[in-house]
Amino acid sequence: MATGTEEIQKMFISYNNIHKSCQKIAKQIMEKGERPDVIIAITGGGMIPARIIRSFLKSKGQKNIPIQAIGLSLYEDLGLDDHAETIGKEVIRTQWLDFGSLEQHFDSLIGKRVLIVDEVDDTRTTLHYAVTELEKEVKEQQIKLRRTDEETVFSIFVLHNKDKTKKADLPDDMMKNDRYLAAETVPDVWLCYPWEAIDIEEHTKLAIQQGNN
Amino acid sequence: MATGTEEIQKMFISYNNIHKSCQKIAKQIMEKGERPDVIIAITGGGMIPARIIRSFLKSKGQKNIPIQAIGLSLYEDLGLDDHAETIGKEVIRTQWLDFGSLEQHFDSLIGKRVLIVDEVDDTRTTLHYAVTELEKEVKEQQIKLRRTDEETVFSIFVLHNKDKTKKADLPDDMMKNDRYLAAETVPDVWLCYPWEAIDIEEHTKLAIQQGNN
Repeated sequence: MATGTEEIQKMFISYNNIHKSCQKIAKQIMEKGERPDVIIAITGGGMIPARIIRSFLKSKGQKNIPIQAIGLSLYEDLGLDDHAETIGKEVIRTQWLDFGSLEQHFDSLIGKRVLIVDEVDDTRTTLHYAVTELEKEVKEQQIKLRRTDEETVFSIFVLHNKDKTKKADLPDDMMKNDRYLAAETVPDVWLCYPWEAIDIEEHTKLAIQQGNN
Repeated sequence: MATGTEEIQKMFISYNNIHKSCQKIAKQIMEKGERPDVIIAITGGGMIPARIIRSFLKSKGQKNIPIQAIGLSLYEDLGLDDHAETIGKEVIRTQWLDFGSLEQHFDSLIGKRVLIVDEVDDTRTTLHYAVTELEKEVKEQQIKLRRTDEETVFSIFVLHNKDKTKKADLPDDMMKNDRYLAAETVPDVWLCYPWEAIDIEEHTKLAIQQGNN
């Protein structure tokens, strides 16, 4: 990352930079022996890093890690309501796990390593919602299936964590056990992701100039 | 695309090339006035083009187009069975549409323009399955909800269509009405997508050399 980023209002990020961020975090995960059993991509932002990191979480002869997508939007982004009283109400689901199809070919999430992927941790609201809801559902399933002795381990991977006051927390044990993985911690600037670029060649040049290639 | 691709065994494709392919197809869609109401990404390969093309299917003041993911794998890729007797049996679902969450915030697919996105059309088996099953489910819903007078329009966008004998067809009216959109038609070579690249800088150089940047 460029030095003196405090002065940069817009941070341009190239695709190749994102690719390398995914590789870096995948390497950390593999070195700790914590290869996930399933990746959960938060759409839309998590889809690109989720697909890329999957390539590097593969060992020889192993199958691709299954990806499930969940759609989460903040009410404020949808322009529906920015006066929600609680965190839970600020997030709406547009898609959730398909436990039916998942279990048919994969068992359930119980006892699995689950890697949740998004592009940016801004206010932490969406990530808080994802982890809390997924943990809750898995616990309900465990009770239903009488498999309460199995431990399900959630980790988070984001490309960028914005260094700012968060509106919500993540579980203590996740933070303590280094299962919150941000490829870069950045100031609270405008992150220009390549998939929004009208002129990708110009965008890539700006990213290279800023050292984000 | 490079000339003389018949001789290239491996075709290297850069991220920026994929970005431009998405922009090109989005422009065609917008010029025809056929902006989709929902994008359905086939995981894992469709996730990256789906997220990119969404950026360019947006008009000023409009909301982001919702993305739903469906997980489809070929049995043969999973090493489970390559002797399936019918096309339907060759594909397994790892995730399907979440009609519950979808309808809560978006109505249903009935009467909508639906854009199905994948990275490559190889044998056409997965795309055939996706369109056929989605059409079937929408028709069932229409009957159930007594909304049989509304027309649901499916389109397909792929980055690459391999010029080879296909194992399955797509609906005639889709092909006739230019609703099958391939950014590039390529020979039956090994497509090296950037998200699989161990060395992305080297990969990008090779893509540039081949004219795929």
